[in-house]
Amino acid sequence: MAWVHADALERFGSELLVGKGVRSDVAHHVAAGLVLASLRGVDSHGIRLLPHYVRALQAGRLNPDPMYRFDRTATATGRLDADDTFGLAAGAEGMRHAVEMAGEAGMGAVAVRNSSHFGMAAYFALMAARQDMIGLAFTHADALMLSHNGSRAFFGTNPICFAAPCQDEEPFCLDMATTTVTWNKMLRVGEIEKSVPLGWGVDSEGIDTQDPARVTALYPIGDYKGFGLGMMVEILCSLLTGMPFGRDISRMYADPIESKRHLGHFFMAFQVDRFVDLVEFKSRIRSMMGEVRSEPPRDGEESVQVPGDPEKLNVRERTQTGLPLADVELQSLRDLADESALEFPNVSESPFTHG
Amino acid sequence: MAWVHADALERFGSELLVGKGVRSDVAHHVAAGLVLASLRGVDSHGIRLLPHYVRALQAGRLNPDPMYRFDRTATATGRLDADDTFGLAAGAEGMRHAVEMAGEAGMGAVAVRNSSHFGMAAYFALMAARQDMIGLAFTHADALMLSHNGSRAFFGTNPICFAAPCQDEEPFCLDMATTTVTWNKMLRVGEIEKSVPLGWGVDSEGIDTQDPARVTALYPIGDYKGFGLGMMVEILCSLLTGMPFGRDISRMYADPIESKRHLGHFFMAFQVDRFVDLVEFKSRIRSMMGEVRSEPPRDGEESVQVPGDPEKLNVRERTQTGLPLADVELQSLRDLADESALEFPNVSESPFTHG
Repeated sequence: MAWVHADALERFGSELLVGKGVRSDVAHHVAAGLVLASLRGVDSHGIRLLPHYVRALQAGRLNPDPMYRFDRTATATGRLDADDTFGLAAGAEGMRHAVEMAGEAGMGAVAVRNSSHFGMAAYFALMAARQDMIGLAFTHADALMLSHNGSRAFFGTNPICFAAPCQDEEPFCLDMATTTVTWNKMLRVGEIEKSVPLGWGVDSEGIDTQDPARVTALYPIGDYKGFGLGMMVEILCSLLTGMPFGRDISRMYADPIESKRHLGHFFMAFQVDRFVDLVEFKSRIRSMMGEVRSEPPRDGEESVQVPGDPEKLNVRERTQTGLPLADVELQSLRDLADESALEFPNVSESPFTHG
Repeated sequence: MAWVHADALERFGSELLVGKGVRSDVAHHVAAGLVLASLRGVDSHGIRLLPHYVRALQAGRLNPDPMYRFDRTATATGRLDADDTFGLAAGAEGMRHAVEMAGEAGMGAVAVRNSSHFGMAAYFALMAARQDMIGLAFTHADALMLSHNGSRAFFGTNPICFAAPCQDEEPFCLDMATTTVTWNKMLRVGEIEKSVPLGWGVDSEGIDTQDPARVTALYPIGDYKGFGLGMMVEILCSLLTGMPFGRDISRMYADPIESKRHLGHFFMAFQVDRFVDLVEFKSRIRSMMGEVRSEPPRDGEESVQVPGDPEKLNVRERTQTGLPLADVELQSLRDLADESALEFPNVSESPFTHG
């Protein structure tokens, strides 16, 4: 394990991409989005994805210099063709338009097409929340969610992300897959424990398995409810964008790396002060969060947390300690640096300072 | 058990309310919404609530002749003060404005305040879908959801409802509580089985119980995820409306029936054809539903269903058979008829015709 400062890693990622011909605004969102995910402890969607993105760029899957075409179809709605660029940049451009329309119309919604893997949904919803708006971000993904009463996957882990501004504290942010666990969490726990809990996933026959190597589909949360939420996300991201759905969605790793993903996303922003006084809203959400945290915990638990609290804690801690990287992750990032004759940031074998 | 035709029951409900001084547009939504819930098989939110609503009306909780104050704050946003009328009417008025704004701005969102219990969320989302829009409806409710890692409830069963239009078929409609089961389902299963499955609820100490009489809080779906979705709904319905939240929300039955509820709701409508061609959207959602239904079921299951399929089947069947009423429900509706000297619709001791 090694530690690298987040800001240094973000600068490195951005310079590396620019060096490979990626336009600077695109490179900025990719590096900033990946590093934010790592800071929040969402390592599956963090800086470890950079080498994969670079390979996809070099293979022609990702467009380094996209010509965005935004079509504002009404005062509050629009469509963005992302010209097959990195999903993190496509998503940021989509949310930027949603926020801009919300500034005029009170709210805005943007359907993004011809995009790619967009990383962590919170990156986009938080963009809205930092401008005192409520932000929502959705993406579809390739089939990984066991259909309710089915024996295989049809929809993806299709996440829902919601963020809202708060007084004197980072925004409330719920960012969740509609499956019980994410694919990467299943893999990580499987690697450490050599087994996963019953009820996480099924094998290729649709039979419950605890063997992580045999899992091909993950259970939705709440049976038909998570399945229905996944379908809702698919309707927004596939049908409102004109992109493929279900088992026709391309796969991030299993499909040839030169093939485009043709993914869709959906973003919404609302201006809080079109509904209530902004100061009062931010004060009340802070009270709500305080009340939740003061609720009596059940036996064996330390406290009741607000969704997003573990991520906030990670940000505070990792801003101090640096981002932890597994040896294999560090090596693949260093290989990228060498390949581009770029200096790699300082690496420490222990946390820089304890948070 | 007795059966009564849905349309006759709707007329009866509406006439009864008008006879008690309720304005006809308000009475229409209450009767139509309750009967639609019964038709869909959502009996907990169906016509059995009419006697409770009448008592609440007579006690002064519900305003029979509301002066709605709608404040359009931007082209796509507005606030509705529902003047303490029936939630079903308040919600319909809120969604009407959302749909109207969406017609101009591409989408519309309305925060409703000073409302009451709004029944089944699908009634409102389907209003939008029947006008070729995507509709979303949310309401908060009194504390009944066990907080994740907590020992008691803070948020309500806060439902999420999403509807979208479909070609040659009733709209797709997901209408779900963010708890594993609804309170009424827990009560019904408990009454029949004298026990409920482990994992549905906890007692007043926060300890798992299978005794339906001891359940005081219900588990959220997907642990922190359902809890987070419930908090999202609370932010929309409490904080964007200025209404109370969490344990400060009034209780439907336990609070004095003359006290106002001060509930909030949140509605959204999107015009599909601001994003993609409407005909293509409706055709593709039908294909998606067809593909889902053709997915291989797991052992022991007949088929994979689209969320909302059981409700569609109920509507088809109950339109033929009439609505089934338990004896006690029938009696309380007949008592209302007698009290108002109104003729009660034809009652059959068996289904009118088999669907």
